[in-house]
Amino acid sequence: MKQFNDENFLLQTPTAQRLYHNHAAKMPIIDYHCHLIPSYVADNHVFENLSKIWLEGDHYKWRAMRTNGVDERFCTGADTTDWEKFEKWAETVPYTMGNPLYHWTHLELKTAFGVNKLLNPASAKEIYDHCSAMLQTPERSARGLMQHYNVEVVCTTDDPVDSLEHHLKVKADNDAKIFPVRMLPTWRPDKAMAVEDPVAYKAYIDQLAQVSGVAITEFADVIAALQKRHDFFAEVGCRLSDHGIEEFYAEDYTTAEVEAIFKKVYGGQALTKEEIAKFKTAMMVEFAVMDHDSGWTQQFHYGAIRNNNSRMMSQLGPDTGFDSIGDFTVAKNMSKFLDKLATQDKLAKTIIYNLNPRDNELVATMLGNFQDGRYGAGKIQFGSGWWFLDQKDGMEKQMTALSVLGLLSRFVGMLTDSRSFLSYPRHEYFRRTLCNLLGNQIENGLLPASEEAFIGQMVENISYNNAKQYFKF
Amino acid sequence: MKQFNDENFLLQTPTAQRLYHNHAAKMPIIDYHCHLIPSYVADNHVFENLSKIWLEGDHYKWRAMRTNGVDERFCTGADTTDWEKFEKWAETVPYTMGNPLYHWTHLELKTAFGVNKLLNPASAKEIYDHCSAMLQTPERSARGLMQHYNVEVVCTTDDPVDSLEHHLKVKADNDAKIFPVRMLPTWRPDKAMAVEDPVAYKAYIDQLAQVSGVAITEFADVIAALQKRHDFFAEVGCRLSDHGIEEFYAEDYTTAEVEAIFKKVYGGQALTKEEIAKFKTAMMVEFAVMDHDSGWTQQFHYGAIRNNNSRMMSQLGPDTGFDSIGDFTVAKNMSKFLDKLATQDKLAKTIIYNLNPRDNELVATMLGNFQDGRYGAGKIQFGSGWWFLDQKDGMEKQMTALSVLGLLSRFVGMLTDSRSFLSYPRHEYFRRTLCNLLGNQIENGLLPASEEAFIGQMVENISYNNAKQYFKF
Amino acid sequence: MKQFNDENFLLQTPTAQRLYHNHAAKMPIIDYHCHLIPSYVADNHVFENLSKIWLEGDHYKWRAMRTNGVDERFCTGADTTDWEKFEKWAETVPYTMGNPLYHWTHLELKTAFGVNKLLNPASAKEIYDHCSAMLQTPERSARGLMQHYNVEVVCTTDDPVDSLEHHLKVKADNDAKIFPVRMLPTWRPDKAMAVEDPVAYKAYIDQLAQVSGVAITEFADVIAALQKRHDFFAEVGCRLSDHGIEEFYAEDYTTAEVEAIFKKVYGGQALTKEEIAKFKTAMMVEFAVMDHDSGWTQQFHYGAIRNNNSRMMSQLGPDTGFDSIGDFTVAKNMSKFLDKLATQDKLAKTIIYNLNPRDNELVATMLGNFQDGRYGAGKIQFGSGWWFLDQKDGMEKQMTALSVLGLLSRFVGMLTDSRSFLSYPRHEYFRRTLCNLLGNQIENGLLPASEEAFIGQMVENISYNNAKQYFKF
Repeated sequence: MKQFNDENFLLQTPTAQRLYHNHAAKMPIIDYHCHLIPSYVADNHVFENLSKIWLEGDHYKWRAMRTNGVDERFCTGADTTDWEKFEKWAETVPYTMGNPLYHWTHLELKTAFGVNKLLNPASAKEIYDHCSAMLQTPERSARGLMQHYNVEVVCTTDDPVDSLEHHLKVKADNDAKIFPVRMLPTWRPDKAMAVEDPVAYKAYIDQLAQVSGVAITEFADVIAALQKRHDFFAEVGCRLSDHGIEEFYAEDYTTAEVEAIFKKVYGGQALTKEEIAKFKTAMMVEFAVMDHDSGWTQQFHYGAIRNNNSRMMSQLGPDTGFDSIGDFTVAKNMSKFLDKLATQDKLAKTIIYNLNPRDNELVATMLGNFQDGRYGAGKIQFGSGWWFLDQKDGMEKQMTALSVLGLLSRFVGMLTDSRSFLSYPRHEYFRRTLCNLLGNQIENGLLPASEEAFIGQMVENISYNNAKQYFKF
Repeated sequence: MKQFNDENFLLQTPTAQRLYHNHAAKMPIIDYHCHLIPSYVADNHVFENLSKIWLEGDHYKWRAMRTNGVDERFCTGADTTDWEKFEKWAETVPYTMGNPLYHWTHLELKTAFGVNKLLNPASAKEIYDHCSAMLQTPERSARGLMQHYNVEVVCTTDDPVDSLEHHLKVKADNDAKIFPVRMLPTWRPDKAMAVEDPVAYKAYIDQLAQVSGVAITEFADVIAALQKRHDFFAEVGCRLSDHGIEEFYAEDYTTAEVEAIFKKVYGGQALTKEEIAKFKTAMMVEFAVMDHDSGWTQQFHYGAIRNNNSRMMSQLGPDTGFDSIGDFTVAKNMSKFLDKLATQDKLAKTIIYNLNPRDNELVATMLGNFQDGRYGAGKIQFGSGWWFLDQKDGMEKQMTALSVLGLLSRFVGMLTDSRSFLSYPRHEYFRRTLCNLLGNQIENGLLPASEEAFIGQMVENISYNNAKQYFKF
Repeated sequence: MKQFNDENFLLQTPTAQRLYHNHAAKMPIIDYHCHLIPSYVADNHVFENLSKIWLEGDHYKWRAMRTNGVDERFCTGADTTDWEKFEKWAETVPYTMGNPLYHWTHLELKTAFGVNKLLNPASAKEIYDHCSAMLQTPERSARGLMQHYNVEVVCTTDDPVDSLEHHLKVKADNDAKIFPVRMLPTWRPDKAMAVEDPVAYKAYIDQLAQVSGVAITEFADVIAALQKRHDFFAEVGCRLSDHGIEEFYAEDYTTAEVEAIFKKVYGGQALTKEEIAKFKTAMMVEFAVMDHDSGWTQQFHYGAIRNNNSRMMSQLGPDTGFDSIGDFTVAKNMSKFLDKLATQDKLAKTIIYNLNPRDNELVATMLGNFQDGRYGAGKIQFGSGWWFLDQKDGMEKQMTALSVLGLLSRFVGMLTDSRSFLSYPRHEYFRRTLCNLLGNQIENGLLPASEEAFIGQMVENISYNNAKQYFKF
């Protein structure tokens, strides 16, 4: 019987254990997509207690608590204390057995705080006090945790109008040898194509004009302004863009049409569904060309249905745990969009993340249509299990699809996609899962045992080297 | 080498075996969704022979026989004897190896009749005679079998116009301590929204008017009549509704529109596709509100394509083995429908059953959007593997999706969905599969072995307690 | 630790090993769907070197090489030598670990050339020279390889206008006892319904008129001409048709409509989307009736999106590695099309191959709607894992779906779908995977160990006997 959460956690075979301990464990972390709050890194934030770093903003935990019958007051309420919230979380934890939260919880407690006890109502107070105290030490501040987890680079997610002041501050500290972890921005221009709401869109464009110093009266001005910001992001070290889209857009359009659509929405008029699709296609193409010309990597996260619960949306706003997996039909548009770019030789390095695992094979084979030896290995990437799929079952399905339909060896690997400074063990979780998969294949004779050195190198590459080289960090 | 169908059937690890034998096996059965013929329970039906209880109406077996090259005469023909039909079934059984029918067959023979032989042409006669004789004893009548299998409650599936006379008879016998198993009705109003056929619809509405004593001339009358029947069902102990739908309906509509649509169809005119969708949405909302206000649980079985074979439909009618799995796009409408109710705080406890397993993750995450601590744990449930998915592979996929994307611990568990008094071993099958999954996780160190008592309690809850509490039986 | 690619490759249990070695290994190969070049068999082609037989036309390998960063020159370029191409392939091979190419590569080297070394840059030259030399011997010519692999029948893929001269040549050699392997044509009339391009379509119809000797002026003439060719194919031994379709077509149409559509497209006018769907439905129905009346089996390969990369399409043409998996909605049309035929009792034996594994359960249950004992067992078949799915994971999913939702025992089994004379080990790969699945079930007590003889017979049937009987070879 294997022990829970010990040094061989998730590693079912001796070969898997060797692969992990000899190859994966030592590699630094490149967290090339996350949602850290940049000011927390710039200011080296100290967390008041375990609730503050662990429960605040964590919609995964809130969803589990709501499912477990916990009242909303203890998830997001202003009238409950941090300890009361934690208590409810501790009550919920045993009921999450089988959910990744149960694994993450204990892996985070162990690796960040040295806690090996199981979290439950009986242990809650002791664990809360112990961890809250540790959080007051320099080793468990925002920066302390990043160094503790051997993080080398993180890429946050930022709007084109963002000043990137916190990134510049961290860069200065990097240069001054005060802090070794690099924090780079990621270009996430969702708002620049959110034309569904003309009022909000106009406000955004006006802000863009101001920040960029480009007067905007027509579509070409929008692109010019965005290009200036894109250049600025590049200067600050940006190497990736990111787009959150329900579906891929690939309408045919003319410059005149897009110009007219822009004037219409900027003038405050609602657009038709077709106009929205044309406009979004045009914007996506413009962004893609910018990314290509800068040598960046573009990321597409598609397929979520967000804010399903209107009552809770009006009460709590977005990103509070009311999003779920959609069932969009995407293959033809995804193909057409990528082809539009490839035809002009403007297709940047690309990572595609699907939210519905039923699309795994679709995405894994779509890659192959646009791989191009001129850009090096693995130009088009299948993104690691995203959001709901960022767990053992989801990761195994994603890696299996990539492996049988593409080249696992060229995978750029894991990212946390997280807001939390305690999420770095997800890299460990991923690496253990990867080593376990490969170990099983070796022990079952599906891969040659004689090639363990090569496979060990492959593990190191997927854990770190591939990303390092791919993103040019 | 494990033995087939012995006491540790499906239980691959010692931990799984302990979980099953110490926790699951002893729990009574709550069969909260089935298709038993109520009169059989009321009259304590005695089955003439093994064919009558096993092959009659069993479209699973007919499909297997047809696939195996058996002529239709031996499935549904009037010109073949019960024994001849059984003989053809016995010939087919060895060819079902790998199909759940092979497991169910031998589990049913063993648990109902003490037969441990494999069914095949050589053993057919002996088994037929042995079981047919046993069926004549009081212990193997309809009621005898329910008690033999430790059934506590069954919920049949009933039309709003049904008199529920058989349920009342069983209730009287419960009260008189003659028979301990409760048989409750379930509200299945599919015909009340089947407006595709104006003639049949008018006939149904007229019948509803008569049964309810409400004169129906407009839409509000339909609702008033249905509400009266809903109240009657509640009096007789109903706690669930059920809806068989291809897709979720979530059109916007006004009262005036629905009124006009009702008048049109009741007047004998065919409706447009849009009118049908609007009307069905309105009906579904009305039903949902009734269920919410009564504290019932609403069930949605979606995604089947029925009666695919017109020739056989005209020959044999529905539910004869010519249905299959569809590929509907449902997420946005499912979300919109549930949200429409949640916004008014009229969302009842809900169970969603998908027929295509590619929707497992979609459904498992949809739940989380509408969980609500005010209703207790697990308000929105992911229905256990339904119909074609009611087998080891289907159950494992459903439970894995629920587990990694929700809380398995709060699952209300298994139901037979069956017409047969021999289907209760499917609860055993489910519980063994559940214990095997959890046992594997413990033995692989994915769950802590120290928590076996808690996990054992979780097994008892999923087997029985969760349903008991959720449905308020 | 199991050894890679030894005699028990893929066979994890002793039972699996017995099933394979005692039952599967000895069975001849019926390769009922492939893309061999018929002239190569007729002329008993001798391959100049290992690149010529292994890399030429192999878009699987090209995709892997492109993904691995290899320049297109070394895939399809005219300016690189065979050896240079091979060198790049050998460099890529280690990076395909986890992909079926790694298994196929070493299984083919072992079974065709006795090479047990792993292919990589260090071994490349030795292997290339060794195999290239062996290819000059009569035992490794096109015919030599077919006999080496114990092939009994192959069915190529041929256009209705094809002269079938090479098939006739092989038939003559069969009759003269010069060569024992039969090569039969398969009727693949995709071009006869490719009305998207009126110019190409007219050219094709004119060619059809010439070859058939039927003057074509109206739709009925097209059918008459095709029927003549269908009869000719039957004379040459054809037993199957095949259709490559994105989706199933099931529009309602009248003879007059189809006549008008034919005249329009034959007159050079582009058709509307609706006209195309009507015309294709009509053609598919006509083809299906021909197949039914000839006792043939019709095959449908659906769901690919082809030629996604326009730039490479214009450079290299089709079938060069730029195709991928689509996400079409198909169930209702598939059902309607099959029902249209079943209603007239014109539904031939049918094999359905899906490219997206998310449709596995849909297809596996669709079969059951149209099984018909009058046609013998397994009339409607679920095609073995196709194209991207022709690998361990894809095969296991297909066989599991077929098994739990239909009858695995009646499966007609494997085909290579390949252009290569080195692809026959895929039958071995399939059989090992099948035996491994069944062996695991027996050892886990899911099938009775006492029935190993019956299960061994089932393995022999799926490997060979079922196909032999089903296709009437």
